[in-house]
Amino acid sequence: MLKFFYAARTCSLASHIALEEAGAVYQAVPVDLAGGEQRTADYLAINPLGRVPVLVTDRGVLTESPAILAFIAQSYPEAGLAPLDDPFAFACVQAFNSYLCSTVHVAQSHFRRGARWADDPAAIAEMKRKAPQVVADCFEMIEHEKFAGPWVTGEHYSICDPYLFSMAQWLESDAIDVTRFPRIAEHRQRMSERPAVKKVLAALHA
Amino acid sequence: MLKFFYAARTCSLASHIALEEAGAVYQAVPVDLAGGEQRTADYLAINPLGRVPVLVTDRGVLTESPAILAFIAQSYPEAGLAPLDDPFAFACVQAFNSYLCSTVHVAQSHFRRGARWADDPAAIAEMKRKAPQVVADCFEMIEHEKFAGPWVTGEHYSICDPYLFSMAQWLESDAIDVTRFPRIAEHRQRMSERPAVKKVLAALHA
Repeated sequence: MLKFFYAARTCSLASHIALEEAGAVYQAVPVDLAGGEQRTADYLAINPLGRVPVLVTDRGVLTESPAILAFIAQSYPEAGLAPLDDPFAFACVQAFNSYLCSTVHVAQSHFRRGARWADDPAAIAEMKRKAPQVVADCFEMIEHEKFAGPWVTGEHYSICDPYLFSMAQWLESDAIDVTRFPRIAEHRQRMSERPAVKKVLAALHA
Repeated sequence: MLKFFYAARTCSLASHIALEEAGAVYQAVPVDLAGGEQRTADYLAINPLGRVPVLVTDRGVLTESPAILAFIAQSYPEAGLAPLDDPFAFACVQAFNSYLCSTVHVAQSHFRRGARWADDPAAIAEMKRKAPQVVADCFEMIEHEKFAGPWVTGEHYSICDPYLFSMAQWLESDAIDVTRFPRIAEHRQRMSERPAVKKVLAALHA
């Protein structure tokens, strides 16, 4: 059976929702990030990077949200989570998710995880000061350029939607006024009404 | 015909090599980053992010290296650039490329592009100071955990190889001693002997 390592308030929410949408049978294993479980020898043996999400399959371990999301879409084709038979449309899905992981999530990480890229507390504070502006620029780009609506790529729900949802969850705590992004705010509402999303959020906050 | 926008000394090298390996017919269009061409209205109409690479197809525009690389692999299946019929193996390819774009490339960007995440010159200098260590940690992870050899995923050359090659090109200019990473150094040498790589590098430096 699939084993899914996750933590609340992380991007693992995206893959978690996708597993539910796909109707996958899996065991969800919470990782206690605040308690440092991700740095234990046991966890590092699973993912040497000490991060979530991780999906353990009978073939081996998968990491990185865009890869896990595409794997779920390809493994459960009947769920229709990506345009699997159309390389161009699939690439558009991948491009959006790649933008989220390499630009948006990175911008957000400068708010709380500046110590990855600097040691000087003043530099870390400066990254935190600028982060809301950098993150807002990303959401501006999504709102006006990348979001087709009502779902990310248009009429069809895909693995882009839970991934955007996972990052849009952090807007308020990143000190960003979500009313600046009405289409993303509506998308967040639309997502939160889906049974799979309700189920995952209820489990996370149980 | 495909139109490929690229610039020397950027990660567009990866997609450029993949297009050659695939035997694709394409027009290569250099973008003058030093001259600011990426911020012109014409270029922003193609890619609002003002970045390379961009692949313009008859269906529309594709951005983001991992997405373009997977699109090339799927569009030219006879080139064997990814395990297209095996979702788990394909996810491993994607996970590696996602790590490169969201962690390795980001670490490298703190060496020269710290202004993305801070305004204070002292903070930008602090990121630059720490960057060689952060980048070296990434290559340590690749050398010991993620690189199967002789190619990234093992016996089969894939879209992971030119992407790793593009980032390993910057080790010296990122002030990192490449002899710390003998397997990556050998891979770089192995890559540079491939006809497709020679052709692209010759064109870039013509």
